Amino acid sequence: MSFLDKLTAKWNEGKFVCIGLDPDLISLPPHLKKTNSPTEAVFQFNKDIIDATANLVLAYKLQSAFYEALGAQGMLALKKTVEHCQKNYPDVPLIFDAKRADVPSTSEQYAKAAFDLYGFDAITVNPYPGKEALEPFLKRADKGIIVLVKTSNEGSGEFQNLKIVGARGKLLYQFIADNVVSEWNTNGNCCVVVGATFPRELREVRKIVKDMPILVPGIGAQGGNLKDVLVNGLNSKKQGLIISSSRSIIFASSGPDFAKAAAKETLTLNGKISYYVKNFA
Amino acid sequence: MSFLDKLTAKWNEGKFVCIGLDPDLISLPPHLKKTNSPTEAVFQFNKDIIDATANLVLAYKLQSAFYEALGAQGMLALKKTVEHCQKNYPDVPLIFDAKRADVPSTSEQYAKAAFDLYGFDAITVNPYPGKEALEPFLKRADKGIIVLVKTSNEGSGEFQNLKIVGARGKLLYQFIADNVVSEWNTNGNCCVVVGATFPRELREVRKIVKDMPILVPGIGAQGGNLKDVLVNGLNSKKQGLIISSSRSIIFASSGPDFAKAAAKETLTLNGKISYYVKNFA
Repeated sequence: MSFLDKLTAKWNEGKFVCIGLDPDLISLPPHLKKTNSPTEAVFQFNKDIIDATANLVLAYKLQSAFYEALGAQGMLALKKTVEHCQKNYPDVPLIFDAKRADVPSTSEQYAKAAFDLYGFDAITVNPYPGKEALEPFLKRADKGIIVLVKTSNEGSGEFQNLKIVGARGKLLYQFIADNVVSEWNTNGNCCVVVGATFPRELREVRKIVKDMPILVPGIGAQGGNLKDVLVNGLNSKKQGLIISSSRSIIFASSGPDFAKAAAKETLTLNGKISYYVKNFA
Repeated sequence: MSFLDKLTAKWNEGKFVCIGLDPDLISLPPHLKKTNSPTEAVFQFNKDIIDATANLVLAYKLQSAFYEALGAQGMLALKKTVEHCQKNYPDVPLIFDAKRADVPSTSEQYAKAAFDLYGFDAITVNPYPGKEALEPFLKRADKGIIVLVKTSNEGSGEFQNLKIVGARGKLLYQFIADNVVSEWNTNGNCCVVVGATFPRELREVRKIVKDMPILVPGIGAQGGNLKDVLVNGLNSKKQGLIISSSRSIIFASSGPDFAKAAAKETLTLNGKISYYVKNFA
C-alpha cells in the first residue's frame, strides 16, 4: 500500500495526529535511562508509546537527528522501532524526517537508506538543489516525498519569503510549492511541509497545492494554533493534513505512565481536531 | 586548532585537494568486500587511502549518505575513520558532508552528532530555513560551517538562479552568499559551497565572499574543469579553495593497489593545481 493510500485510510477514520518520535535521551523517563543501553532505552520508549497510541494516530514521524546524535546505537534503535511498527501496525505510515537533499548520486544513497534499509513510507526533503537532484526520491512512486516549503522556525522568512522576479508577485516558498505541484508530482507522491506557526502561509500553500497532503509541524511546544491550522489547511475533502506533535505528547509525563499519558494527549488533540473540522472548516 | 587555521596551514604547504571518502560498498575493491563485515571493509578501505594520502591532502570530506546507507554498521565505520585520522593526522581537517538544516532544537542534535559525537572539524549545511535555524551550528566558533550556495548538479538553477525583487538584480544563490558574509559570519567560521561545474557562478560568489573559503565539489567524475575553477575561485592570497574529488581518486584502481593509485591521483591533481595557481591565477 502506498504512503498516500495509508494516509487516506486513516483520514477516513478521522485520524489527524502524527506523533513525532524524537526521543531526546536526556528527556526520557528516569527508569528507562537508568537501566538500559541507549539503543534499548530509546527502543523501549518508542515501543511503549507506539503500543499505546497505534490505534489513535494518523502516522509516526521519526526525526533523524535525535537518532544520529546517539551514533550507531541510535541507528539501531531507529531500525528496531520501524521493524516493530511494520510487524505490528503495518497500516500506520512511517515518516523519516530527515530533510535530505544532495546531488543525484548522493540522493540515491539517502533514498536507499530511508526506503530499502529502514523501510520508511515517506521522507522529508529540502528543495534547494532542485527537482533533478531529488529524482532518486521522486521516482519511488509508492513512497511519500514531503518537500519543505515553509519551515516552522521564527526566522524562516530570510529566504523563503523573498519575492521572485517575473513570478507574478510570488514569494520563494510559493514558487516552490507551485513547482512541486506542476513539475515534481508526476508520480502523484509529493507532499509539502508548512509550519503550524504560519497559518496565513498555510492558506496560501493550500490554494497552490490543491488537495495534496501537507505535513504541519509546530503544534504544541513550538506554539502553533490548532484552530488556525485546520481552518487554513484542510483540503476540499476536509482532510489532507498531517498534524505533527512531538514533545507535548511523548513527554506528557516523565513517570512510568508516560505511554498512557501520551495516549491521553493524542486522544485530546485528535478530539479538538475533530471538533474544529466539524464546526469551523 | 580551528577548522580555518588547519586549512590555512595546509594551503601554506601548497595543498588544495580534499579527498571525498564516499565508500560506495559496491565499488570497493573485491578483496575487501569478500573478507570483512561492512564496517571493517569500509574502515579498512578508508584507512588505507588515508594512510597513503594524509601527507598530500588539504582535507578529507566524508559524505554521510554513503555511511547511512549501511545503517549502524556504516556509522561505526564513520566513527572509526574519524578516530583514525584524529589520532594519526590531527592536522588534517575533516569535513562532514551532510547538508543538514532544521529548526533550532533539531539542528542542535545534528551539531551534537557531527562535532561532539564524531568530532568533525566542519559540516556542510543547507541555507533554506535561514540563519536563525542554523545558530546551533554557527555558534560553534572553532568549527567550519560550510553553507550551500550553488550546488554542482545540472538542474541546480531551478531555485538557486531565481532573480530576487529589490536585491539589485541578485539571484538567490548570490543573495544567500551575501547574507552569509554580512549576517551569518559573526564567528568568522563560515564557508560556502559552489560546484566546479559552474565556474561563472564561482567567480560571482568569490566577488561576494571576499577571502572566505569555498568548497568546490564536482571536479573529476562530475566533469568540472580544474583551470576554470582556479582562475575564477582563488582568493586574494591565491588560496581559499577546497577542491574536492571523490570517485576519480578513491576508485582510481579496483585492485589491491587502490591506495597507492589514490595517492598517485592526488599527487597528479595537486600538481596540476600548483601549475595553474602559478601560471594563470
